Amino acid sequence: MKLPAEPLPQAPEWIAVDWGTTHLRATAMGPAGAIARAASTDGMGSLQPDQFEAALLALINPWLAAGRVTPVIACGMVGSRQGWAEAKYRPVPCMPAAPEALTRVAVKDPRISVQIAPGLSQASPADVMRGEETQIAGALALMPDFDGVICLPGTHSKWVHVSVGEVVSFQTFLTGELFALLSTQSVLRHSIAEAGFDAEAFDQALSDALSRPERIAAKLFSLRAEGLLAPAASPASAIAARSRLSGLLIGIELAASKPYWLGQPVTLIGAQALCDHYARALQAQGLNPTFLSASDCTLAGLSKLKGAL
Amino acid sequence: MKLPAEPLPQAPEWIAVDWGTTHLRATAMGPAGAIARAASTDGMGSLQPDQFEAALLALINPWLAAGRVTPVIACGMVGSRQGWAEAKYRPVPCMPAAPEALTRVAVKDPRISVQIAPGLSQASPADVMRGEETQIAGALALMPDFDGVICLPGTHSKWVHVSVGEVVSFQTFLTGELFALLSTQSVLRHSIAEAGFDAEAFDQALSDALSRPERIAAKLFSLRAEGLLAPAASPASAIAARSRLSGLLIGIELAASKPYWLGQPVTLIGAQALCDHYARALQAQGLNPTFLSASDCTLAGLSKLKGAL
Repeated sequence: MKLPAEPLPQAPEWIAVDWGTTHLRATAMGPAGAIARAASTDGMGSLQPDQFEAALLALINPWLAAGRVTPVIACGMVGSRQGWAEAKYRPVPCMPAAPEALTRVAVKDPRISVQIAPGLSQASPADVMRGEETQIAGALALMPDFDGVICLPGTHSKWVHVSVGEVVSFQTFLTGELFALLSTQSVLRHSIAEAGFDAEAFDQALSDALSRPERIAAKLFSLRAEGLLAPAASPASAIAARSRLSGLLIGIELAASKPYWLGQPVTLIGAQALCDHYARALQAQGLNPTFLSASDCTLAGLSKLKGAL
Repeated sequence: MKLPAEPLPQAPEWIAVDWGTTHLRATAMGPAGAIARAASTDGMGSLQPDQFEAALLALINPWLAAGRVTPVIACGMVGSRQGWAEAKYRPVPCMPAAPEALTRVAVKDPRISVQIAPGLSQASPADVMRGEETQIAGALALMPDFDGVICLPGTHSKWVHVSVGEVVSFQTFLTGELFALLSTQSVLRHSIAEAGFDAEAFDQALSDALSRPERIAAKLFSLRAEGLLAPAASPASAIAARSRLSGLLIGIELAASKPYWLGQPVTLIGAQALCDHYARALQAQGLNPTFLSASDCTLAGLSKLKGAL
């Protein structure tokens, strides 16, 4: 999504930046919080290391003032080895936000100073996150006494055990990427709608996958075979197939993440529509998850880093 | 693979054709079996219905004689709804080959007559096959007394229960397609070699997946995280990651297909290298599978159809 920045009546105190593989989002921050937002599609994945400064300036230039240095604090894939500058992973267990571990980036434009938040790593089972640690820090700023499990659904869904303000352990699932590949690149694409939700089909598939997760590769082909053997393909059956695929993939994720969520308070952080599916799935298991928006959490996490500088 | 046909000293009695989504393979048949082979990349997936006859003639023209009608018998996706002409599925349980159910295709060239073998379908769980039924018929021609389970590894792996010459039931797994998507299109592609095999990594991943199949989506992301956290990426670690991916996917397939193979004689039909991996995996479970080449089985199956006409 593109959202150009507009000139502001007063220069921002600092700029919060969420910079992922496919997106760049900036928020101009005043003394009382966000005063303006801007976004471009200059994600990390489309930039060479020497192109990051120009991409950032192209987005936030209207907010900058000559003769003044505006601090920029960024999180996400911008800090990966293929990003602007590597912000080395911090090993868990640790606090999710570490102002002292920000990586300062050399810039040419004297109007900005740029720092990047590091991701977290786990030695065994091997795992990594970048960007989510800032959302988790934000969630803990928004809910200071939270102890339990944070689930961040997405391309690479994360389940995170949080206790006394620290990330204790976490586990990543390829769920969102599998959904995208299977629904758009595999033979299943012929049977699957581009949008829509069939609650009954989702619930049934979720239940199937939770009770017999090992049957996943067979259940996936069934989606195609059902489409071929149906007397006539219909928009409704394609929406049901999409919802079954979603239910199957979230189902095997819940089967494997059970040690995380069983009997725990769960907070979901992410996009509303996707979190709604996870909430529905967890409710069917007797849980009552709470929801926080990803952008609110990112901003709260970056603000916590800024406040500690 | 392309292999043009050469003129033959004598016209073939008939021509056997294996016509899949991405390949077209023809075998000129004499009284004692194959006398010549030819292949092109004119698979079903790249052709419109009115282009099939020309694609076939482009391949086999050197084998045809004016004033003589050469029978062509074909199997595979050429008989699908998107193929040359639909050869409707036959429901199991049934014999794998049915000469009386061949679909005759109208052609313009008077030198050929073309018939297509139908696939098989199963109502519950919904499943379909096209082309494999002819390989199964061929396997039973080559091993007339075989009773047990036939496994056909591939893009869409099939496990088939065969008894007294009939296909009793079968189950398809998306294993090969998942491997292709994950190794070339997903974030894992950065960590995975294009070729090579590490037996120890394969065995360990297979064992992990068989004992904890529900952890598959987490294990998949671990392949990426291990690559990121390793002190240095190496060709050996990329080959190990490839073998682990293969072991994980074959492992969840074996976990789900256990009702098929447990305590049964198993015959593998497919490409040698892939069948070697399945054989290794099944041997670790105490089985001793036999192997038949896919092209031998296809030819034997088409010959059985021709012989019954």
